[in-house]
Amino acid sequence: MEYPSKLIEEAVNQVSKLPGIGKKSALRIVLQLIKEKKENTFALTEALTKLRSNIQYCKHCHVIADQAECSICTGIRRDKSILCIVEDTKDIMAIENTGQYTGLYHVLKGVISPLQGIGPAELTIDSLIERVSKPDSIIKEIILALSPTMEGDTTSFYLHKKLKEFPVKITVISRGIPIGGDLEYADEITLGRSISSRTLFS
Amino acid sequence: MEYPSKLIEEAVNQVSKLPGIGKKSALRIVLQLIKEKKENTFALTEALTKLRSNIQYCKHCHVIADQAECSICTGIRRDKSILCIVEDTKDIMAIENTGQYTGLYHVLKGVISPLQGIGPAELTIDSLIERVSKPDSIIKEIILALSPTMEGDTTSFYLHKKLKEFPVKITVISRGIPIGGDLEYADEITLGRSISSRTLFS
Repeated sequence: MEYPSKLIEEAVNQVSKLPGIGKKSALRIVLQLIKEKKENTFALTEALTKLRSNIQYCKHCHVIADQAECSICTGIRRDKSILCIVEDTKDIMAIENTGQYTGLYHVLKGVISPLQGIGPAELTIDSLIERVSKPDSIIKEIILALSPTMEGDTTSFYLHKKLKEFPVKITVISRGIPIGGDLEYADEITLGRSISSRTLFS
Repeated sequence: MEYPSKLIEEAVNQVSKLPGIGKKSALRIVLQLIKEKKENTFALTEALTKLRSNIQYCKHCHVIADQAECSICTGIRRDKSILCIVEDTKDIMAIENTGQYTGLYHVLKGVISPLQGIGPAELTIDSLIERVSKPDSIIKEIILALSPTMEGDTTSFYLHKKLKEFPVKITVISRGIPIGGDLEYADEITLGRSISSRTLFS
């Protein structure tokens, strides 16, 4: 497509690099910004510039944070004897939203995926081992909360092998039929697993 | 949703103001920007800042442009005796992409829409009349290329009333069954109109 202006062309090119946005949506966004007050665009660019300039990763759990230590790791009400292992920051947000968990986290920053060239060394596994093996560690339980995919399961298996030498209980989040889900539409593997790992009715 | 960082929260709020982007997509975009190199974010913010600081409207046809005069109005190969009236810049891009038109344009910057409080005074109609009524005007034909909606038709009607006193031919783009469209699926109004405005087979 030809653009009537180089400024529009460059802005559309940049906006269409964002995930989930094609050239048509990018053009719509750019034309909308031109229609609106300048201040709206400047508020957006300032927020993104600040974000990218100042964002850090928590030195304990590697979550994306404003400071060198995140609000969860420094929270006085958190149970520091439980550690939940997740793939990325989005997973922490999802678990926090449930309100069911008060322990700490450890962000792996990915999962082992030989096809994408991601091995254990690319993840924060060394830092996890360090946290668990510290002489003054009070960690009693480690929850593996990775996605139920081939890569997630491989990573859980690897972590289990690395962690079983330490005096911690290793658990995994339960898999089964989603609440509100219909048996009829559940896939066979999930349904089979939910039968074999049935629990006492209480 | 609670965000682990104020910087993320502010960035998500700003990004989700863009048209077609909700909170979830905004979060995805923000987390992707954090994963990538800083330079990518800065290239995006720079393009948007430059766009919003420097963009202008062509003083003749009111299209969005880099300079005070657009490349179409100053183009030496354009036929300056034809003027195509469109609603906004996007329409010019669509017509230019067809490669079928070599005349000039006039952007109304909207259509008459009493429901949205847009009357003739909010549009660039005065500037259009000025272009046509200039003593040295060489405009011979005006093509009305507005959307076939209630508002578009109202605006075309209003423009026709205003322009008919000048010695110019006033035409309108043809409506009918789209090329490749199936008669079966055409709506009744379009099909009826395409029959009543039939042309000689050639």
